[in-house]
Amino acid sequence: MSGVVVPLGGAGARAKNSKPASIKPLMDLVQADMELVNRLILSKCGSDVELIPEVARHLIDSGGKRLRPMLTLASASMCGYTGSHHVTLAASVEFMHTATLLHDDVVDESDRRRGKLAARMLWGNQASVLVGDFLLGQAFRMMVEAGSMHALDVLSHAATVIAEGEVMQLGTAQNLETTQDEYMEVVRAKTAALFAAAAEVGPILAGAPKSAISAFRSYGNNLGLAFQLIDDALDYGGSSQTLGKNTGDDFREGKVTLPVLLCFRRGSEKERTFWREAIERGQTDDSRLEEAMRLMREHNALEDTLARARQFCELAQDALATFEDGAYKQALTEVLEYSLTRAN
Amino acid sequence: MSGVVVPLGGAGARAKNSKPASIKPLMDLVQADMELVNRLILSKCGSDVELIPEVARHLIDSGGKRLRPMLTLASASMCGYTGSHHVTLAASVEFMHTATLLHDDVVDESDRRRGKLAARMLWGNQASVLVGDFLLGQAFRMMVEAGSMHALDVLSHAATVIAEGEVMQLGTAQNLETTQDEYMEVVRAKTAALFAAAAEVGPILAGAPKSAISAFRSYGNNLGLAFQLIDDALDYGGSSQTLGKNTGDDFREGKVTLPVLLCFRRGSEKERTFWREAIERGQTDDSRLEEAMRLMREHNALEDTLARARQFCELAQDALATFEDGAYKQALTEVLEYSLTRAN
Repeated sequence: MSGVVVPLGGAGARAKNSKPASIKPLMDLVQADMELVNRLILSKCGSDVELIPEVARHLIDSGGKRLRPMLTLASASMCGYTGSHHVTLAASVEFMHTATLLHDDVVDESDRRRGKLAARMLWGNQASVLVGDFLLGQAFRMMVEAGSMHALDVLSHAATVIAEGEVMQLGTAQNLETTQDEYMEVVRAKTAALFAAAAEVGPILAGAPKSAISAFRSYGNNLGLAFQLIDDALDYGGSSQTLGKNTGDDFREGKVTLPVLLCFRRGSEKERTFWREAIERGQTDDSRLEEAMRLMREHNALEDTLARARQFCELAQDALATFEDGAYKQALTEVLEYSLTRAN
Repeated sequence: MSGVVVPLGGAGARAKNSKPASIKPLMDLVQADMELVNRLILSKCGSDVELIPEVARHLIDSGGKRLRPMLTLASASMCGYTGSHHVTLAASVEFMHTATLLHDDVVDESDRRRGKLAARMLWGNQASVLVGDFLLGQAFRMMVEAGSMHALDVLSHAATVIAEGEVMQLGTAQNLETTQDEYMEVVRAKTAALFAAAAEVGPILAGAPKSAISAFRSYGNNLGLAFQLIDDALDYGGSSQTLGKNTGDDFREGKVTLPVLLCFRRGSEKERTFWREAIERGQTDDSRLEEAMRLMREHNALEDTLARARQFCELAQDALATFEDGAYKQALTEVLEYSLTRAN
């Protein structure tokens, strides 16, 4: 295992000796708009029903990177949009994401989220379900405010696809016989669909040509696919198997992710018994986690997961190829590289 | 207690000797459109993810009266609408309602719904949360299809108000100190808001004047308020205290409803202890249910609940007063009377 990352190739590639890829150029470009988004997010959490802002802000203040709304802001600006509705749609995208997380934690019975206790542990499943519903409603109200029927169509479609993905995931959960295709279909629906929609509504607002809309959709979709696979790999320490704060969370929750599926299929019958005991029967103590990580090394599971993620990043990069070079294109390309390096 | 219902007064009142008030005239008027709504509902439950139509249809096929979508159809037609989008919006309203029921059952930990096992008992809380999310997403997609930004605004606003109402209800649940005002605020949000929106989007589609839109909103809102109070009274047998199939459900689930609040405030300290043991500590066997019903008789709790419902029905009737007489107006008035008589 090398630990060395070969930068993405192609026209937009950065020089090999430049400083490490970062999300910062994108953050700098959208900073002013993002402050408006953050302010809007806080104001739209408000309700006379006190519990709502309390629960919503617990999650919203917990420091997600807000990559999805940044995609909306960047894609709108890159297509020459000069209005203010991209801020509204960006906040709406983040609310859809937050609503999904609240419901996810209930569905997965997760105890923690972003290093804090999950909302459901503090206020109960009931509040998590209902505040999620409230945020989803607010997301739609903001879409209406933005006034683009086309954007509404894209985002409401994404809402149904995300729910379909989550339901599909119920079927694959703890099912080690899940194929890679089935798993990727879940990832496409539950994760990539919102990335795709977030990136697509920017050019839609800007009145960009169909080809630009499709290009950004493709960028978002492929970034989303890569993003989830990288997360999967990171949960077992990434390709360098460095222990991070969330290492082993997926394992302990019995989540079927791509590295696990690869190991299960490539392993011996004895190894498959190990995986069944871990994933299906919850035998996931630390010595078993170590064994899982050893098997992942043996079967190249993390490297191959990241190789797939890299392919999606390349597709995302290609999607933006026909746009003129510039700060936004550069920053969006660097996000792809950054995603890959954080897992190494 | 009389068991006799004085018909609603005013211009639209029916003769005292006519046959009992019924929902049938309304059903007959919208029948052709309603068939299209039902077909649309079935088609929009569809998904490649098999569990989704399975769960959705369990509830959708369980024979709700579909009063909300009928309001949309009737109000659109009464305002002269001749297009087909009222069918789309009516289906969308019913999906919002169904999504709410799925989430409600999870939040209330209910075992049964409409005389069948609740979806969550058959497929788990997870599926109920996620299929609810899917239906809500489909509801928004249909609103987008209908193409009216104004209707989208009204319905998405209703979605947030419903969620607020449900969260408020968490605060009043099993809290016998809830005031009538607080209780009515919950009912307004969780029940009446969707009735109001359902009735309002018809005239909006029809391009009716503002006064007509407000009138239908008022009709829907007041019908919704009455509807919930009548349900509350029916759960203890209505004013004649006849045992129906759901008698005592609210009591056994420890729900704080208006009849309970009236009894609690009007009762002696000893009676308040009885209510605390029942509602807060779940002592709700059949002999306690009988005692609860006796206290309701003693304190006129059901009659007074129905008297409040009657006031809301009168407000609803007044809301439609300035419209020309005709079959729709007559049918919508009869719905109000029917609502009141079913509780007697």
